[in-house]
Amino acid sequence: MAAMEMGDHATFEQYLEKGSVTFSSGRIGIKRDGDDAALFVFSEHAVYAGAFTTNAFKSACVTSAMDRLRAQKKIKAVLITSGNANAGTGPAGRADTERLAAGVAGHVGCAADEVVVLHTGVIGVPLRAERLIGSLEGLCQLAASTPEKLVGAARAMMTTDTFPKVSARAFQVGDTSYTVWGVAKGAGMIHPKLATMLSVLVTDAPVSQRTLQRVLSRVVGQTFNRISVDGDTSPNDSVLLFSTGGARMEAGTAEFYGAVDETIFEDALKSVAQDLAHSIVRDGEGATKFLEIVVRGVQSEADAERIAETIATSPLVKTAFFGEDFNPGRIISAIGRAGVAVSFDRLRLTLGDQRVYDAGQFLVTAESDARRVMAMKEIPVVVELGAGELEIRYWTCDLTFDYVKINAEYTT
Amino acid sequence: MAAMEMGDHATFEQYLEKGSVTFSSGRIGIKRDGDDAALFVFSEHAVYAGAFTTNAFKSACVTSAMDRLRAQKKIKAVLITSGNANAGTGPAGRADTERLAAGVAGHVGCAADEVVVLHTGVIGVPLRAERLIGSLEGLCQLAASTPEKLVGAARAMMTTDTFPKVSARAFQVGDTSYTVWGVAKGAGMIHPKLATMLSVLVTDAPVSQRTLQRVLSRVVGQTFNRISVDGDTSPNDSVLLFSTGGARMEAGTAEFYGAVDETIFEDALKSVAQDLAHSIVRDGEGATKFLEIVVRGVQSEADAERIAETIATSPLVKTAFFGEDFNPGRIISAIGRAGVAVSFDRLRLTLGDQRVYDAGQFLVTAESDARRVMAMKEIPVVVELGAGELEIRYWTCDLTFDYVKINAEYTT
Repeated sequence: MAAMEMGDHATFEQYLEKGSVTFSSGRIGIKRDGDDAALFVFSEHAVYAGAFTTNAFKSACVTSAMDRLRAQKKIKAVLITSGNANAGTGPAGRADTERLAAGVAGHVGCAADEVVVLHTGVIGVPLRAERLIGSLEGLCQLAASTPEKLVGAARAMMTTDTFPKVSARAFQVGDTSYTVWGVAKGAGMIHPKLATMLSVLVTDAPVSQRTLQRVLSRVVGQTFNRISVDGDTSPNDSVLLFSTGGARMEAGTAEFYGAVDETIFEDALKSVAQDLAHSIVRDGEGATKFLEIVVRGVQSEADAERIAETIATSPLVKTAFFGEDFNPGRIISAIGRAGVAVSFDRLRLTLGDQRVYDAGQFLVTAESDARRVMAMKEIPVVVELGAGELEIRYWTCDLTFDYVKINAEYTT
Repeated sequence: MAAMEMGDHATFEQYLEKGSVTFSSGRIGIKRDGDDAALFVFSEHAVYAGAFTTNAFKSACVTSAMDRLRAQKKIKAVLITSGNANAGTGPAGRADTERLAAGVAGHVGCAADEVVVLHTGVIGVPLRAERLIGSLEGLCQLAASTPEKLVGAARAMMTTDTFPKVSARAFQVGDTSYTVWGVAKGAGMIHPKLATMLSVLVTDAPVSQRTLQRVLSRVVGQTFNRISVDGDTSPNDSVLLFSTGGARMEAGTAEFYGAVDETIFEDALKSVAQDLAHSIVRDGEGATKFLEIVVRGVQSEADAERIAETIATSPLVKTAFFGEDFNPGRIISAIGRAGVAVSFDRLRLTLGDQRVYDAGQFLVTAESDARRVMAMKEIPVVVELGAGELEIRYWTCDLTFDYVKINAEYTT
């Protein structure tokens, strides 16, 4: 698996050469081994938008980032630490997050509330930021704007991810070329604790905070919210979108936007976010199969999502794919319990290139065809409801021995 | 594991001696090996109540049983076949179910719509009842009223269950002693296809159809609907409750009921249903732990169920228990994503005898205590919300290598 999937590579290198963002990574003392801190510093302050976990149990870093967003702070730097989620740690936990923000702020020259701090890792263990503060100076000093530094930062965010996740796209508005890029970490565990999905997305396009938020919400809804490894959500899940061109723009430059431009930007952002979301699924704990679930012919997007999610989180469906057991009955049953009105007489189900259910009945599939489809690494699952024009896509992986192993292993 | 959990054993044997129900089991040609048919014949017709799968994708046997219930048919016999679910088989599938009912009816002397037929097993494969009909005569002839015959019938219902599930209780109304007993099969697979939960419950108490249905709905809500092995539901899940005293009663004898008597009956039925439900969880595929989740201090039963179910279906929680990994963070996170308003400042979580979360923070648990609790085979998980007076209980098992193995194995 390649460490990076970057469209328009040359353009991205040009973007990095401008130096408007620098990256750093290193070890500040949370994990026993390896890098546990990633730093992103903007040369000018960036406006930002965010999408956060829907889990009512939120990490201190999420409430802190949400507070900055509510206050419409311009952001100078983002610090991501791995190894400790700083969740369920009470007021002391929030103080730890703010102490790290203040530490970074001192070295990059900004106010503490212009630094966003995110954590990932084990839940319910005090972070004790005081023992980490001393390492921040070195981390800040090493920041530079190279692809290697960026990949290093993406790697330092990882817990049990097996590869760093980076993606970038260039796009054109009028005569000007812009970039949108991002990093993410996925459903990995640190000493088998809760998974945390984190992503930082950045563009140099001059976009206002309000537009950023609107576009981000739509894009997250169609990418990061359409993936499932095991259906669990964490107290730390966060997606942040920064515009380094945004601050400048609000200071006088006009936002580049018309409706057409917004679409161009949104398409590029969606492409990056989808890359990262797919990487998270491909790197799902223990995963051996990548499943693209297409739900087509529906009137309501919410209904379509419910059907896709019920299939994607069914342990019976997921273990069947792991075992390469051709088992459409489990998928039809998952559709039946999704809580959506479905006409089974009109339903069609296709696995790979095999139509397996049509007009209220399962069709006979030749065993050689079944084996061929199940042996694929990437298997399309297409559900056609014949009740409308909408179509959505959802991505998941299989449920394997290794998933159980990774998550059952004793911590000591 | 004992094959039977029977309270009031002597009373139950007396009940069987009356011969008001006879049992039979045998092989009619669905499975490759072993018994695949269980028969229950009432000496007088029984009134009945039913609770069926909420899955919108329903087996032919479920729609057939629901039709009989709607028509308030009195029932003479119940045939349960294992090895083929007869689901997703279209109109031919329904005809197959009715053909089996007619076959039994011919041998036990009743109308075809006075026989209820249930199926469990693989989905989407034609049943071809014509090849099974010939074996029904022998099955009907062998029916007798002994505990061995009853256990044989409970065993013939099994797919990958590892033990037959039977339970009975006696109860007293005025001077008269009655019995309620039941059999069930659980979350097993036949050639790793979809699980099917089936239960047949019988009482000789004179209870009207309307009362039976009211009591059954309450009891199922607190027993079979409060267990989860993997969160999947099947097209075949059915719980049927028969009163062999009911028909007689409707023909003249008064229903024994006052409110007090209804409570006595309901308690006995609930005790039997809970026994069977617990047996299903203990025999859950690959299960090594039995978890009792208590949610206490809530105002809404629906909220409490949502919290319990989210914990019980979380792969992260279930793998942690399998690995004996003391991991309260995963439980708190599951509570957080249950979609219920929870005040984490008032929340308390106790695992075994260890309070692990209180007043917004995780408490420190000594490693020896954590190890001791996780080593237990039956682990209480107590969630206290401090927001009301209600309490509910919910039962589940862990998620293990064997679960994945059983459900991933290739069918051939």
